[in-house]
Amino acid sequence: MECVLRPCRAEDCAEVMRMIKELAEFEELPDQVQISDQVLREDGFANDPFYRCLVAEVPPEHRSQDVPGKAGISTWKTCTSCLSSEIGVENRCTQLKFVVLDWNRTAIDFYQGQGAVDLTTAEGWHFFHVEGDALKQLAQGQLGH
Amino acid sequence: MECVLRPCRAEDCAEVMRMIKELAEFEELPDQVQISDQVLREDGFANDPFYRCLVAEVPPEHRSQDVPGKAGISTWKTCTSCLSSEIGVENRCTQLKFVVLDWNRTAIDFYQGQGAVDLTTAEGWHFFHVEGDALKQLAQGQLGH
Repeated sequence: MECVLRPCRAEDCAEVMRMIKELAEFEELPDQVQISDQVLREDGFANDPFYRCLVAEVPPEHRSQDVPGKAGISTWKTCTSCLSSEIGVENRCTQLKFVVLDWNRTAIDFYQGQGAVDLTTAEGWHFFHVEGDALKQLAQGQLGH
Repeated sequence: MECVLRPCRAEDCAEVMRMIKELAEFEELPDQVQISDQVLREDGFANDPFYRCLVAEVPPEHRSQDVPGKAGISTWKTCTSCLSSEIGVENRCTQLKFVVLDWNRTAIDFYQGQGAVDLTTAEGWHFFHVEGDALKQLAQGQLGH
């Protein structure tokens, strides 16, 4: 399968936003999406970009039958993990890191089939975050230390 | 406590490297450090930098007694989490994300005291990586898909 990986352009942000929402719905966490395509544009395509993004173009014969223009999920995972690894290795990356929900067996089996290691199980790494009021308080140094 | 947060400079890389090694030894994972201060310089201070780094300068009275110039770990965590949050919030970040080893109770208690949530326990997120030969194979598209 030949996918083309190219830099994301500002005009792709609406489609990227659609995929972010779709993934969050699949993960049963739709309320966690706080970003908009407007913010994606501002953060990624200003003078000092805040993130980098690649777009994988999937050939028509590998797209989903029921939703035209949309790639099947395994096609998407294969494309993005292979091609982003290729670019990463060219740039001397030594690790590809990501998180997966423990009930998402299809994704876990897929990634482990590619040699991915579950570091939460293997080494005990837990994934933490701070957000909302706690993040604001932290930013204001209101810690009581 | 007044810490000063400033952009890392190329000449700080040797000290950053020392801290990376020290943390890996504390985590009982010293063999996982693959980077050198030379690579840190090249990746962070070339034309199109690959990472951004801040340095927290800790006042002398908060430095460890036994190792001159070195901050106590709780001072270090307070400085870096407060100040990096401040900069993050100014730049519209909505989350601070990080990983902690499950046996590191001191760190977990410290971060949870600041409002951090363990997303591995709360939502089931597992932390994965691909490295070494598996990463090279992924980059070469040798997947059999």
